[in-house]
Amino acid sequence: MAQIFERVALIGLGLIASSMALGMRENGLAGTIVGTARTKQSRDVALELGLCDEVFASARETVAGADLVVFCAPVGAMESLAIEVAPHLKAGAIVTDVGSVKKAVIAAIGPHLAEDIHFIPGHPLAGTEHSGPRSGFASLFHNRWCLLTPPQGTDPQALAKLRALWEGLGANVDLMDPEHHDLVLAVTSHAPHLIAYTMVGVADDLQRITNSEVINYSAAGFRDFTRIAASDPTMWRDVFLNNKEATLEILGRFTEELFDLQRAIRRGDGAQLFDYFSRTRAIRRGIIDAGQDTDAPDFGRDTSHENSDASKK
Amino acid sequence: MAQIFERVALIGLGLIASSMALGMRENGLAGTIVGTARTKQSRDVALELGLCDEVFASARETVAGADLVVFCAPVGAMESLAIEVAPHLKAGAIVTDVGSVKKAVIAAIGPHLAEDIHFIPGHPLAGTEHSGPRSGFASLFHNRWCLLTPPQGTDPQALAKLRALWEGLGANVDLMDPEHHDLVLAVTSHAPHLIAYTMVGVADDLQRITNSEVINYSAAGFRDFTRIAASDPTMWRDVFLNNKEATLEILGRFTEELFDLQRAIRRGDGAQLFDYFSRTRAIRRGIIDAGQDTDAPDFGRDTSHENSDASKK
Repeated sequence: MAQIFERVALIGLGLIASSMALGMRENGLAGTIVGTARTKQSRDVALELGLCDEVFASARETVAGADLVVFCAPVGAMESLAIEVAPHLKAGAIVTDVGSVKKAVIAAIGPHLAEDIHFIPGHPLAGTEHSGPRSGFASLFHNRWCLLTPPQGTDPQALAKLRALWEGLGANVDLMDPEHHDLVLAVTSHAPHLIAYTMVGVADDLQRITNSEVINYSAAGFRDFTRIAASDPTMWRDVFLNNKEATLEILGRFTEELFDLQRAIRRGDGAQLFDYFSRTRAIRRGIIDAGQDTDAPDFGRDTSHENSDASKK
Repeated sequence: MAQIFERVALIGLGLIASSMALGMRENGLAGTIVGTARTKQSRDVALELGLCDEVFASARETVAGADLVVFCAPVGAMESLAIEVAPHLKAGAIVTDVGSVKKAVIAAIGPHLAEDIHFIPGHPLAGTEHSGPRSGFASLFHNRWCLLTPPQGTDPQALAKLRALWEGLGANVDLMDPEHHDLVLAVTSHAPHLIAYTMVGVADDLQRITNSEVINYSAAGFRDFTRIAASDPTMWRDVFLNNKEATLEILGRFTEELFDLQRAIRRGDGAQLFDYFSRTRAIRRGIIDAGQDTDAPDFGRDTSHENSDASKK
């Protein structure tokens, strides 16, 4: 693939940034890749793995001369980073981010950028339970969606370049209004994460059940919750603090429905339960047809397959 | 492996029974395998796949002469099956089941069996979102747990044979009191399933978000919920109706905690959220160390691996 950017600056080197770096390398999308990491350990790892050509402790040094700057920090850190780097950005640079909320990020970054900077917020819908510079892999974005929320009047050429980068990393790109993005993500991500965290917390708290029971018998459904609930605590704290309104709205809907089903259980209303449980299969079918999951019997989780390609990655 | 039972009767030929049949064949655990399926289509499939040597439309015919009878029907169907087959059981036969609840199943089956029958309830903690005789695979129980809840005074030899069968299928066997079983499963399975069903239902209902948005952007967390919520509706209706008390207790605890976290979000209490989200990582680590899940970056779900061993199965 042809090079799209000459110099890409990744502010923060966690799962998303390290995956971007490896993907850009693999596909020749960037001339030079530089990055910021606060700790010496992460900087050493980034160089050791070849994620970056140069690594800096400060964001301001990192952005100098870059034609693409990607904010890969927790949402709560975005505003101070914007203030820090704004005076050091190259004229005409594209600034984007990978935050899981968009309205709050736009409010945190936008006002600090000069007029000659192209600010195009983004959100790749991909991740694992792991974090840090060693957790990245080049195929993380393959066949996943990346949502961009360009403000009105965004330069079409800048947008085309950013889109080409994400497509070069294997993602499908879609454009969306920031407010709608935050509502959609409250449904497909934020509320499910809070629910999973809560359920795992309840299990951990219950005195009458040992943790080893929870752990051994998790295959019956619970283990999917634990995967979600093992995600990065800082990132998720910031998501909930910055998508408050939509998350609370969806959680309100959720508890309303849950109470209704609880009442059906209490009353022994099998017909209501059966109808509800039948409805949800269609959505699952759609997800498999759209290539967003596999219907392999055990998702490659059977530990007898631990040496297969899929789990070695 | 040596043959353990001469003639095994599987009442019902869904995911669990078909996986047992394939596993018993692969390991030579049973001389003859017979099964019951209500529909002609399932009977044809069972013979075509070689699950059974003979297939019957009625349970009563199936159990004749069997030294092991396995009830593989939804929990709600167990009592009428027990009444139907009881007079036709061979003296000294072992009767077990694979139901997800134990107290209610014991009450449904136990009273109908003669004194010369060894009734040892069981529950293999393994499953996928698929159902029916084509969904089975021999390795379903590998490294999964099977819980047995033998009543006081169970014949040790009968128990040893049933344990050997499950171990021959690759499972780890544990003994448990039925009441404790139902509480543990309410935590690790029943409550998570109801929660997942509810969340998927909420997403399906929301007018402002299209189903294609939910489907395309599911990779952000939601798709794990849809997998759980695609499970067999009949089976799950019966689980909730028959483990009412424990499920409602755990759901009560769950909503209590959820409300507390919602309030933390509303108040902007980042410290409370961060502490809660940090706690849940330890349980996840335990599950991976216990071999009940893999920490492969994407669980073999990346569709570029669709031809790998793990997803071909």
